[in-house]
This record gives sequence, structure tokens and C-alpha cells, in this order.
Amino acid sequence: MNEELILRLEIQALLDAYVATIDEDRIEDWPGFFTEDCLYEIIPKENVDLGLPIGIMRCENSRMLRDRVVSLRNANIFSPATYRHFLSGLTITDRQDEAIEFSCNYLVINTNQIGQSFVYQTGRYQDLIVRQEGAWRFAQKRAIFDTSRVQTLLAIPV
Amino acid sequence: MNEELILRLEIQALLDAYVATIDEDRIEDWPGFFTEDCLYEIIPKENVDLGLPIGIMRCENSRMLRDRVVSLRNANIFSPATYRHFLSGLTITDRQDEAIEFSCNYLVINTNQIGQSFVYQTGRYQDLIVRQEGAWRFAQKRAIFDTSRVQTLLAIPV
Amino acid sequence: MNEELILRLEIQALLDAYVATIDEDRIEDWPGFFTEDCLYEIIPKENVDLGLPIGIMRCENSRMLRDRVVSLRNANIFSPATYRHFLSGLTITDRQDEAIEFSCNYLVINTNQIGQSFVYQTGRYQDLIVRQEGAWRFAQKRAIFDTSRVQTLLAIPV
Repeated sequence: MNEELILRLEIQALLDAYVATIDEDRIEDWPGFFTEDCLYEIIPKENVDLGLPIGIMRCENSRMLRDRVVSLRNANIFSPATYRHFLSGLTITDRQDEAIEFSCNYLVINTNQIGQSFVYQTGRYQDLIVRQEGAWRFAQKRAIFDTSRVQTLLAIPV
Repeated sequence: MNEELILRLEIQALLDAYVATIDEDRIEDWPGFFTEDCLYEIIPKENVDLGLPIGIMRCENSRMLRDRVVSLRNANIFSPATYRHFLSGLTITDRQDEAIEFSCNYLVINTNQIGQSFVYQTGRYQDLIVRQEGAWRFAQKRAIFDTSRVQTLLAIPV
Repeated sequence: MNEELILRLEIQALLDAYVATIDEDRIEDWPGFFTEDCLYEIIPKENVDLGLPIGIMRCENSRMLRDRVVSLRNANIFSPATYRHFLSGLTITDRQDEAIEFSCNYLVINTNQIGQSFVYQTGRYQDLIVRQEGAWRFAQKRAIFDTSRVQTLLAIPV
């Protein structure tokens, strides 16, 4: 079988595991998807289109990700919500032996405490993964979101 | 190729066929996806989180599923709607030779008779499939839904 | 590996590239997904169910598709929006050596200029692809939509 198709399957398995970890509230496992010196950003598409680098979240290594988890569990006060991610449109944009760049549409549906479900955010991941100890990890993950009116405090990662 | 990736493909093909059967209104074919002694449940996430087993639909064998189809076609009075399912986040949680447990996010978009489309329900399937006569069938399918305000009579299966 | 599963992967890679081209606003590349003598239609499910052939867009060859792109970029006045496509439920309905028929659920989320995201359209693609010069191309693509109230001018292809 075509190597690109196998690679697509590996990326989809990684992304499926990633979103399931968030959606099933196993958020302590979330930093484990990243390399130690990773870059994780949530940034509006409007800014990216204008060449402006500022987003609403930026973590420059995995310690900052772990710090966010502690903060989420202990410090932040926010209304509990259930997230559901949906993904489509995976496109591999660069492919080296041990480093792959790809992008992928994402949709997050949020269900609030009174049980209403609504479109919370759509956008596109722009990711760079590298192979470490036999597993793919995110060296960079940018969630570039379309929905510029983020409807509630963005506490949970995307 | 990695066996787990092949298995993921087989599960996705099964789930895609399952949701297409519902969404294309070939509901008579729906019980054929299950084993004779299957368990099919639709249950709110809130109850599952609290350890409460009661849901809004429970069928304990495929005769009950066929009965639901007859009821849908002949007895129930409900406003016709079109369903569209979208799936992501497939995660295999247990894997034996002939029995696989997995979970998967689902989103159902409903379009009502006046042509409006809206998020009807999101949740997560928790499924057990077994191989029978060369094909995978659902021995258990639980649709654990986030959306506790189910917006119209739940007549069509999820 | 099963040939049907490989074919499903090839179709998914094609569909993912197709929707990414629209969603990332590389609309000039859109006609390249089709054969020269293609048929592209957007048609309401209601009409299809009643056997009525009339839709809201019909292009009978790729020159008409390229004309639409020129029109989109130069002539049409419409409110800029970001589209995000999500796909599920791929089902192969006919399979010859060099020609494959399949259908697939689609969901388009639209984000308008003030940053609100909403369900724009759902429906099902009914497609025929043929192999030309080593690549799959759409000989027919029908987007059969559920959402009969199309909420804004349908300028961008689906």
C-alpha cells in the first residue's frame, strides 16, 4: 500500500486519540501528546490572515501545558461543559522521514450544564509531528479558529 | 501494515455503513448490524457519570430492534426529519481476536420539515463488536449523549 | 489488505483534499478535481425524493466550473465567509476497475464576518470518480442538501 495512505492512517489515529483525551476529560494525559519543547497555540484566523502573530493561548513547552492542566483542575472557575471534537479534511503539507506537517479541519461542539449543544468553535489545526521513541508527538500544534466570538471562557484546550 | 490500523479501518467501514443506513432511511436494514442477543441503549452522559443505569431506550435483543422499526414505520406519529451523523475520535479500548471494544464521538444534525438544520445530539458510542460469519456485528451499542435536552421525540435510532 | 478498504482510503484522501481546497480558499484549484466533461450539481433532497431534477446549481463541464471561479473572484458581491466541511458515512455503491460510485454525508459550518459559526448546510454527496492519468477525478458530483432554507446566497461551491 501507498506510504502516504499509511501515514494518513497514523495521523488520524493520533488525532483521534488526542481529541478523545480532551472530550473524555482525561486532561492529565493531554501534555503527553507533545514533545518537551513543543509550541501550542490557539490563534484567530483573522490574525493569521493579516500576519499578526498574537493568539489567545500560547504554550512554549510541555511544562506550560502541564501548568494549564493544574490550573484547569484547581484554580480556574468556569462552567463545566462537555466538548466533542469532529475532524475532516486532513492534508499532509510536508513530509520528511521523522517530521510531518499537516493541517486538518476541526469542529468543537459544546454542551453546557443545562444540556444544550451548540457549535462552539471551528477552525483548522496546523501541526508538526515528530517521531520520538517510536511514537508520533506534536512538536507544534496551532489551532487557528474561525469563530472570533469565542462564546465562553476558553479554559479547556482545543 | 500495523494490525491496529487495519482494525480501525474495518471499524470505520462498519460505523460508516451503520450511520448511512439510518441517514438514508433504510431503517429496515438497521437490526441487521446487531447480533441476535445484542444490547442497544441510548443513555444520558449525566446518568453514566453518576453510575445510574437508566436511559431513554433499551433493547435487549434484535427482536426488540425489529419491533422498533415496525413501530417507527406504522405506529409512531412524529414529525419527519432527516438525520446526518458525523463521527470522529475512534479509540479502541479492548481487543480480543473476535471481540473488540471501542468508543467514538458522534454528532447528529437534524433537518426539520421546514428545512432548518441544527445540532440535534452529540455524544459518544461505547460499542462491543464480535465477528459472526465473517462480518463484524454489534453485540453492544451504547449511545451516551451529552445533550440532555433532547429536542424532539426520539423516534429514529441514533 | 482488503481492496475495498484501500479504495476507501483513496476516496477519503480525495475528499479531504477536495474540501480543504474549498475551506482554505484555494478555489482556483477546485475545477482541477473534475474531469473535462464532468457534471456538478447542488440539488435539494426534497426534489430528489420527488424525482424532480432541478437544483440550484448545475455545471455540465469543467469550463463552467472555471467560469464560476472567475465569477466568484470578480463579479459576485457577497459577504465573505469561512466554510468548514466535515464528512462521514462514506459508502461505496458501485465499483468498476476505473470508475467508482460512492456517497458520503457532508456538513458545512459557516463562520460569518462578525465571527459567528453556524450549521450552514448538511446533505449527502453522490459521486462518480474515474481514474485519469493515475489520479481519481470527479466525473459526477451531486451535493444533495437537506437544508432547504439556504441561509445566505450560495456563492462558494459545496
